[in-house]
This record gives sequence, structure tokens and C-alpha cells, in this order.
Amino acid sequence: MSEQLRARIYEVLDSLVLVDPHTHINALNPAAETLADILGYHYYTELAHSAGMPKSRIEEEGISPKEKVGRLVEYLPLLENTIQSSWLVEMSQKFFGFPGETVTPANWESLYDSALIKMREPDWADQVLKQSRISAVFLTNEFDDPLEGFDTRKYIPCLRTDDLVFHLGQPSVRTRLEKSTGVTVHDATTLRTAIGALFDRFTSRGARACAISLPPDFSPTKVSDAAAGAAIAEVFRHGAAASEAQRRDLGHFVFWTLTEFCAEHELPFDLMIGVNRGVYAAGVYQGRDLYDSRVSLIQYRELFNAFPQVKFPISVLASVTNQELVSYSWIFPNVLCNGHWWYSNTPTYIEHDVAARLEAVPRTKQIGYYSDMYKLEFALPKFAMYKRILAKILAQRFVIDRGWTEEQAIDLGRQVLRGNVDDVFGPF
Amino acid sequence: MSEQLRARIYEVLDSLVLVDPHTHINALNPAAETLADILGYHYYTELAHSAGMPKSRIEEEGISPKEKVGRLVEYLPLLENTIQSSWLVEMSQKFFGFPGETVTPANWESLYDSALIKMREPDWADQVLKQSRISAVFLTNEFDDPLEGFDTRKYIPCLRTDDLVFHLGQPSVRTRLEKSTGVTVHDATTLRTAIGALFDRFTSRGARACAISLPPDFSPTKVSDAAAGAAIAEVFRHGAAASEAQRRDLGHFVFWTLTEFCAEHELPFDLMIGVNRGVYAAGVYQGRDLYDSRVSLIQYRELFNAFPQVKFPISVLASVTNQELVSYSWIFPNVLCNGHWWYSNTPTYIEHDVAARLEAVPRTKQIGYYSDMYKLEFALPKFAMYKRILAKILAQRFVIDRGWTEEQAIDLGRQVLRGNVDDVFGPF
Amino acid sequence: MSEQLRARIYEVLDSLVLVDPHTHINALNPAAETLADILGYHYYTELAHSAGMPKSRIEEEGISPKEKVGRLVEYLPLLENTIQSSWLVEMSQKFFGFPGETVTPANWESLYDSALIKMREPDWADQVLKQSRISAVFLTNEFDDPLEGFDTRKYIPCLRTDDLVFHLGQPSVRTRLEKSTGVTVHDATTLRTAIGALFDRFTSRGARACAISLPPDFSPTKVSDAAAGAAIAEVFRHGAAASEAQRRDLGHFVFWTLTEFCAEHELPFDLMIGVNRGVYAAGVYQGRDLYDSRVSLIQYRELFNAFPQVKFPISVLASVTNQELVSYSWIFPNVLCNGHWWYSNTPTYIEHDVAARLEAVPRTKQIGYYSDMYKLEFALPKFAMYKRILAKILAQRFVIDRGWTEEQAIDLGRQVLRGNVDDVFGPF
Repeated sequence: MSEQLRARIYEVLDSLVLVDPHTHINALNPAAETLADILGYHYYTELAHSAGMPKSRIEEEGISPKEKVGRLVEYLPLLENTIQSSWLVEMSQKFFGFPGETVTPANWESLYDSALIKMREPDWADQVLKQSRISAVFLTNEFDDPLEGFDTRKYIPCLRTDDLVFHLGQPSVRTRLEKSTGVTVHDATTLRTAIGALFDRFTSRGARACAISLPPDFSPTKVSDAAAGAAIAEVFRHGAAASEAQRRDLGHFVFWTLTEFCAEHELPFDLMIGVNRGVYAAGVYQGRDLYDSRVSLIQYRELFNAFPQVKFPISVLASVTNQELVSYSWIFPNVLCNGHWWYSNTPTYIEHDVAARLEAVPRTKQIGYYSDMYKLEFALPKFAMYKRILAKILAQRFVIDRGWTEEQAIDLGRQVLRGNVDDVFGPF
Repeated sequence: MSEQLRARIYEVLDSLVLVDPHTHINALNPAAETLADILGYHYYTELAHSAGMPKSRIEEEGISPKEKVGRLVEYLPLLENTIQSSWLVEMSQKFFGFPGETVTPANWESLYDSALIKMREPDWADQVLKQSRISAVFLTNEFDDPLEGFDTRKYIPCLRTDDLVFHLGQPSVRTRLEKSTGVTVHDATTLRTAIGALFDRFTSRGARACAISLPPDFSPTKVSDAAAGAAIAEVFRHGAAASEAQRRDLGHFVFWTLTEFCAEHELPFDLMIGVNRGVYAAGVYQGRDLYDSRVSLIQYRELFNAFPQVKFPISVLASVTNQELVSYSWIFPNVLCNGHWWYSNTPTYIEHDVAARLEAVPRTKQIGYYSDMYKLEFALPKFAMYKRILAKILAQRFVIDRGWTEEQAIDLGRQVLRGNVDDVFGPF
Repeated sequence: MSEQLRARIYEVLDSLVLVDPHTHINALNPAAETLADILGYHYYTELAHSAGMPKSRIEEEGISPKEKVGRLVEYLPLLENTIQSSWLVEMSQKFFGFPGETVTPANWESLYDSALIKMREPDWADQVLKQSRISAVFLTNEFDDPLEGFDTRKYIPCLRTDDLVFHLGQPSVRTRLEKSTGVTVHDATTLRTAIGALFDRFTSRGARACAISLPPDFSPTKVSDAAAGAAIAEVFRHGAAASEAQRRDLGHFVFWTLTEFCAEHELPFDLMIGVNRGVYAAGVYQGRDLYDSRVSLIQYRELFNAFPQVKFPISVLASVTNQELVSYSWIFPNVLCNGHWWYSNTPTYIEHDVAARLEAVPRTKQIGYYSDMYKLEFALPKFAMYKRILAKILAQRFVIDRGWTEEQAIDLGRQVLRGNVDDVFGPF
């Protein structure tokens, strides 16, 4: 009975039209042009590399997309157990009529070719969105993104702030900031002015969120203008050679200032907590980052208390941090649970984490899922994975364990999948 | 079959008469007087506040209990997914004949009124205990509680020691200590005498445990009388302005001395590990505490080795610490697993944690559950939640996975629910 | 259906002939001589001690094996819930025809006697291996083990290096090193020469791995020969009284050198991460070690980057570290998941951990299980426990949740149980 119940709940959840609240889509080129854009996703390249594929096989200059796919496919049989492989298969079946259960050296070419035909259709991106029942996706725009040339109701701008907080010591970042704002930064005031200009431009173009990914040791605090000024002088002069304390002061000042503008513009600030960049230096493109799971939300205590008016949808990289996220969301009105990020975006961890959220965080404070995708084709299989798990938990833990009706359970699922996205980021 | 098996095991476990080994009941006023005492429980006020209710709505001066309930009920629909909401509904159904499945602005008034009629019956507290099949509950008494005016076989004293360990720098705490013991503390010897006087009084009134909640960074160690004397002089003179080292020395000395008296009086010392107080300063009453899950029982290594004769029933605030609790209980004869505390007292975490305990800790060393309640009405739904999870695990992991008979499984359930409470704290 | 599916998958997995890639078997005396060798396993002595048995009861001088077993059996009823007890019962049923479901003071003697008859049969060890479907087991040999007198194809040498990394300050360890290599160590060069001699001897005797257990705070780094020389001089002169920095430098130098020889000899280096030795000083033999779960694989970042050519099969002591192990194995080609170690070798943790591995780590990079046993009789029940959990996960998470065929699921199980052991350590 439980399996039929799951299937019925899934069916309803799967029929919903959703907004994807966090992706890395390029609005000017949102869908894949060949299967190489799919298999080039870091999940496949890094897993293939981990399974033995030399990095040079796919990062070789001048190889064609088809050649690249062929080389990657050699390693797919070693990954077929992974949930990431299942995304590829489900997408291939749903979008390209792929008849197989695994993509192998024996069957990939016809898949490549049939995908190519579809991808060349002029309205392919819209076909993908429609078939995926996604009406809009959030972008993750660099601060100097012109935000021009696309429909911002369908591709919703979001201000990514990693470079501002962590790399303002690089002259290239400062140059980009000056060019995009017209402000020459030399102290706290001008830095604040420049950041304010970014917010003005982004909100005028329909931005609905500010976002940042943060390392495990980040512990933001308010920095005075004077201390910020000293840090700016020092870091702008010496770059990475500036003292750690002053680089940290500058980062904290920028972060705090961003949050102040989020308050002023009523933008949610997505915090994605816990990543260490470049841990595996010889890894493939985008396959070098890992983490230290020893992180605590207590590091954000001062921030959460200082900005009660700012909503912080929070993603944590390690499942062990999820219980803190549940507890902080249950206590702090401004803390929300946001999706299942990266290394925690696999069924076992999603299942454990979402079950804990659903039973202890107000139902209005949970953003169920975002795809984090680079190409539109991934929304369908990733959301399907999440919806299956959600249906499983609603069936087992709400209908069976707690005696809820199916309708009540479906309502809860609908709210975390769609309703809360509208309420926190929308309306759309 | 598994669901029927669970139901049968649950039915037997639910018929047992239990002793609740940790509550915050006021023995002079143990049951609720109105539904405001139920909805005023911090779980509801903090979740409602987290979901958007301004703190002022319920902490406003002079509002009547009924008005307070009405204001809280507005937010209950936002919390109906939480397990805490399910406690309210189950309690309302069982005690007050509430016919609904959710408490809403449309139906709360009749519930309020029917509850009021019941609560005004002169033997209401005893009715609640009887219907809940609870024969006795442990209190958590401040050290200067007079312990008078109630039946200590039904309301069992327990010496709470947080103020002594962490707040002896406050003149008000010292005054309370002096008043309640007749001892003026000015050095290690007089402090020890005062603490001894507390133990004499508490044990003469039937106390069966000593208890304390501890922050994540607490790492107790033995402090010499000389160092303690120096710390006393300094902390008594400067209060919170004393050096951190000396405040810590004083806390450690008090903690160690408490443990020595636990040894002398053969009292178990309940350690509740991991809470940070006041993290959300603007939170509602009792809704301000959170935690840093980065804590280890290795911090208690010296203590566990120094006091083999003292039983330490241990609760951990974060589920991630549960595996250490399992391992330390499996190795140290004096370490026991104790219930599921606060932020880990939700089904997903209980399920994961109790399964791990039942399969790796001697069956005699596990206190299954305590309610932690402030009003008697909560024992029934909280224990019911635990018993359902326990029945699920016994059914799935012992009867199905390991081939146990139902009777064996029920015996194990009976032991962790009742037998071990008697053996560790009783007899009653 | 799910239970029948599990049973069918289990049946196939249970029929496989396996190689056990990590044990503490003494090749010259691999099987038990009496039941005291079984019940003397630290799991039983430490759990019995934890449940109340005085250490002196079993560590008393001169008691006979039978007396020792009788004394331990008194405490078995207190442990019958533990998975460790189930190993004893399953082994007794399978090897000795034990008819009971629990070993008790009432029935142990006949079990003791029937076991004794079996154990005295001259080919008992081979009978055990055959009935357990184990064709070979890895040893864990001290560096000065002569490795003589046994069939190294059945009992495969593995170089244990704990003493070299952590105890070279002890004169006895240096003496053993000098005797076993003929090299007098007095600087980095001679230390390297001595270690090289160990590798030459071990690999010439068929060693297939190097192994070490590491404390939670270990964070290896490359140490120059000059710094190593200084550390050697200091630590050899002052032993444990040498500075912590120099003792650490010496340990790091040895560890790094071991890894260099693993590279040269193409030996996998088993890292078993997270144990604190001697936490409970008064514990029974081998029942004194615990851990601090606050450890991260980020501590091994420099190592993993420096030795891409060395395979590191990694075991973690706490389940909380498993997600990092999954993520690091998914990114680093040279990091592999290895079994379920010690305090995480219980069903709840195995289930959570193996599910996460199977869905996110390439299928070639997972060593499913090792027994860690001291006597051959334990392979059967320990592997059976793992295979039951593996079958459960394959049934629920692959066949049911992901639509795999039974055959696909079984192939995956076969690979983690056997195929990867061959590929990483073999061929055998």
C-alpha cells in the first residue's frame, strides 16, 4: 500500500508548475547545444575523472563536442550506480526518446544524434521548460553582468557576491566593479556607494535575491567604517599579501554592507554555507572543491540578530549541519531552510534532511528544492528525484506514521515545492 | 505485516505504567489551569514567533489567558506539520474530547472551554497522570527550592545545579545559597560545606538525581582548593568582569564538587550536554537558546575516569553527538544514554538515535525517554510519540531484520521505558 | 514483496567467495582454540564490563578458558540486544550446531564443549574458511613480524605502521626496527633506509597493503630531511619528553616516507581515521579506545594532492565523517571508501553510510566490507550482517526506488563485496 500511496502523491506533486529558485543558467544560452553540454556538467567529468579518466582526455584543446562525449561515455559504466547517472538517463529518456536504461559506449552515438536534432530546434529551451513544468528559473549573475537581452520574468536575476566578499583584493575584480558602477572605491563610503549601485541596477532589472557561497570558517561580524577603510587601503595595496586580519575585515565589511542593502531592497540573501574551494588542485574544471564539515550556524549568530528584517534562505553543504539549520529555522524568524546543496543533494541525505525539516520547521519556512543546474535539461530529473523522496516521506511519515490524509500531505508538498518559493521570492 | 506488528508492539508498550525521569513540573501546580498553559509552552510560542508572530502579541502585559490562546492559534496552521503540533492535537483529543485533526481559529474556542472545565476539576492533575499511565515524575528543582508541600513519591525532587556552576558570580545566586544553607561562602572549604548542605537537604527530601545543562565548550577538570579559593575571591569581587580563566576554574570546581557529593550520596548525575543560552536575544521567553553541534564527549574523559562510582545518564542536544554517546556508553560502565533532548526530540532524529543505541549499548544502560514537560498534560503525547518510534524500530530492526520474537522485542521496549528507570533512579 | 526481494538478493550475495581485506588474524593461530577465544574478543569483554562485570573477573591470573567463558556468560543476557551478541549466536548456530537463540548461563556449557570438539579438529581453520566462503584474509602485521610459517596466498601480509609513526620515541620500538632491518637509525636518510628495508621484506613476502590507524587530530604534512633529522635527534634523546612539535615532525616524516614507499611499491595505504587510544584507562584489554568525532578529511588535503599514484582506502571511525569520505572519494581519484570500522560497524550506521556511498561514489571505488576479526570464526556472522544490510539497500533504494533489475542490483553488490577487493588489492 505504501508504494501505491507514494506513487499517487508523486503523481500530483509532479504535475505542479514550479519556479526553480537557484540555478547557474546562462540566460542567453540556457539549454544545451549538444550532449557535450550535458556530459560536460562537472558531476560527470569529476566522477569520470575520479573513476580513472585522465583530465587531459576531456580538457584537450580542440576536441569536438562529439569526441568529448565519446571519451566520457567510456567511463559511464563505472558511474551507473550514482544518482547523477540516473539524471542523465531519465533526461535522455524523457527529452530524447532514449530507449535504454544506461548510456554506454554501444548506444551513445544515436543518443547524441537524436539529442542534437532536438537541441537545434529554435524553441528548444522553451520546450524543455514546458516539458519540465518550470515557469521560471533564477540565475546567479556576476555583479557586473549586464542583465540584458533576456526576459527577466522567465530568467530571474540574482546577484552573486562571492567575488565582492572574497576577491576584492584582485585588481581585476576592482576594475570590474568600477566599470560596472562608475564608482572608484578607496574607502568605506565609496565601497558602500558602489555596492549600492549594484543593488539599484539589479533590482531595477527584477533581481529577486542576493546569493553567496561561504567557506566553513566564515564568521561574519560588523566592521566599522574606519577599520574597513584601513583594510581597503591595505588590501588594495598588497592583495593576497595583506594580513589575514585585514583581508578578513574587508570581506566582513562587504558582507555586512551587502546585507544592509538586502534589508533596504527587501531582497532575500541566500547563504550557501560550507565550501572549501580548490582542495583538489589537479581536478577537472569545477571539480576541485570540497569541504570541512565542522561548521556551525552559531558563526552567524551576530548576523541573524542584527538583521531581523532580512530573510536568509540557507543551504548547508554537509548533512551534519542540517540539524542546526532545522533548529535555527525553528527559532529565528529570518532563517529559512533552502534546498539540498551539492554534496548533500543525493537521496540518502535528502531523505534524512527533509524528514527532519518537515517535522520541526514551520511549513512556511522551507524552500523544498532548487536544481543548481547549468543547463535547463537538468531541472526535470533533479526535481523528479526530489519529488520522489518528498512523496516517500509524506507517505511514510505523515500519512502512515501520523495519520494525515493524502490531501493534507499533498498540500504540504505543494507548499514546500511552490508556495514558499512564491512567498519568499515572488510573486512571479 | 510490518504495520500490524508495529501496532501490536505499540499497544503493549502503551499499556505500561511509567515513571517520567526528567520534567520541569512545578509540584505545587503541576497541571495546566487553562489552555494558555499548554499553548504557552515555548515550543508553540517560539514556532509561532518563528513563523511570523510578533513577540509582543503574546508577551503583552495584561492579556487574558483566552486572548493569548486566541492570538497563538492564528499561527497554528503554519505549524501543523510539526510534531509539536501533533502533541497538542493528540492531547486535546485524549483529554478534552476534541473532535478535530487540527486546532484552528475556527475551532479553538470550544476546545478552550472544554479544557477549562476539565482543568478546574479538583483532581485534574491526578486524572492526567492516571490517564497517561504515569505514576511519578521527576522535578528539576532550583537549589534553594524548599521542597515542601507535595508528595515526594509522586513528584520526585532532583537538584538542578546550573546556577551553582555558571552563575555563582552573581550576588543574587550567592545570597540564595547562603539563605538556603546558612553557610557564608568565602573559600573552597565553605563552598564545599554549602554544597554538602544542599545535598543533605535534597536527599532527605527524597531527591533521586542531580542534573545540569552544559554548553558545548564545557570540559570539566579537577581544580585544587587553592586555585578554587583564588577563583572564588576574584569572581566574588568582580563578577562577570573576572577573568575567563578564573570564572572557568570556579565553575569546574563547583562541578567537580557536585560530582563528589553525587558519589557520596549515590545520586546519578544527569548531564545534558550542548546548549548555548541566549543565542537569539530577541526571542520569546525560553525560545532563545540554540547550540553549536561541534561538541565531543572526549571533553568529559577526565570526569568519567575520575568517578567510576557515579552514574552519568547523558543527554545530547544534537543528534550528531549520539554516536559518541552510544560508543562511550558501550565502553564506560558509568555512562548511560538518557532520552532524546529538545532539538533532537523529533521523530527523524529519535529514530536514528534510538536504533543505534538499541543495537550497541547494553540493554541495562538506556533510559528510553523523559518528557521534559512543564505541564503534566504533555507526558501523554510525548511518550506516545516515542513509543510509536520504539515500536517501529523493534518491529523492523529486531523482529523482521534479526528474527526476534515479538515477546523478546516487547521485553526490550519495556526495559528501556520502565525497567532501567527503576534500576538507575529507583526503586519507586 | 520487498522482504522477498531482499531475501533473494541476499541469497546470491551470500553465495559469493570473498577475500577479507582487513583482519587481525594471527596466521600461525588463525582460529579459536576454545570458546574463550571467541568470548574474549574485546566486543564481549568491554560490553560485559560496561554492563557491570568487574575487569578482574576475566583478567584474573590463572583462570581456565572455561571458567573465563562461564564468568562472561553471566553478563550476556544484558547484551543480547547488541548486534555483537547476534554475531556470537549466529556463529554458534552455524559452526557448532547451537540450537538456542541466546547464549545463557543455562546453556553455555554444552556450547563450550561442542565448540571445543570442533576446534580441536586439525583442519578447523580451513573448515571455517570454507564454510564462511572466505578464500583469503589480510593480516595486520607488526613491522618486525617475520612473516614466516604460513601460506601468504591465504594469509596475506599487510604492513601495520602505527608503531613507526607514533612510537618511534620508545627505545623498544627502535630496537625492533634495528633488529628487523639491520639499520641503525640516526637521521632522515637512515630512517628512510630502514623503512625501505621493511617494504622490501614485506613485498617480497606478498604484502598487498600498508595500514595505519590515526588519531582525530592527525594532519600529515611533508617534513624536510633537515627538520626530520632534528626531530630524530631530539625524540631519540628525550622520548615522550621531547617537544610536541618535534614528536609531530617525526611522526609526519615517517608517515610521508611510508607513503613514498607505498608509491614505489604500488601498495595501497589503508588509512583508518579517528581513534583516540586509552581514553578509558581502567578498561579491559582492547576496550579503552574511543574518539572525538570532530575530524575532517581536509586534514589530508596535502597528502591526497601529493600522492596521486597511491590508493588510499579510507575507513572512518564515526559515521558523521562518512559524508566527507563519500565526497572526497567522488572527487579524488586516489581516495576510496573502505568498509565500516569499529564503532560504525553496527547496522544503523552501516545502512546510512553504505546507502550514501552506493549512490554517489563510482562503483569501482568502494570496498564493501572487512571483518577486522581476530579469529576466523567471526567472518561469517560479520559478513552476513553486512550482506543483509547491503541486500536491504539494493532492494529498497535500487530495485524499488530506482527501477533497477535484480540482476543489476546483484552485480553492484558483487562488485563492492568482491570485485573491487580484487581490483584494488589483488589479483589473488
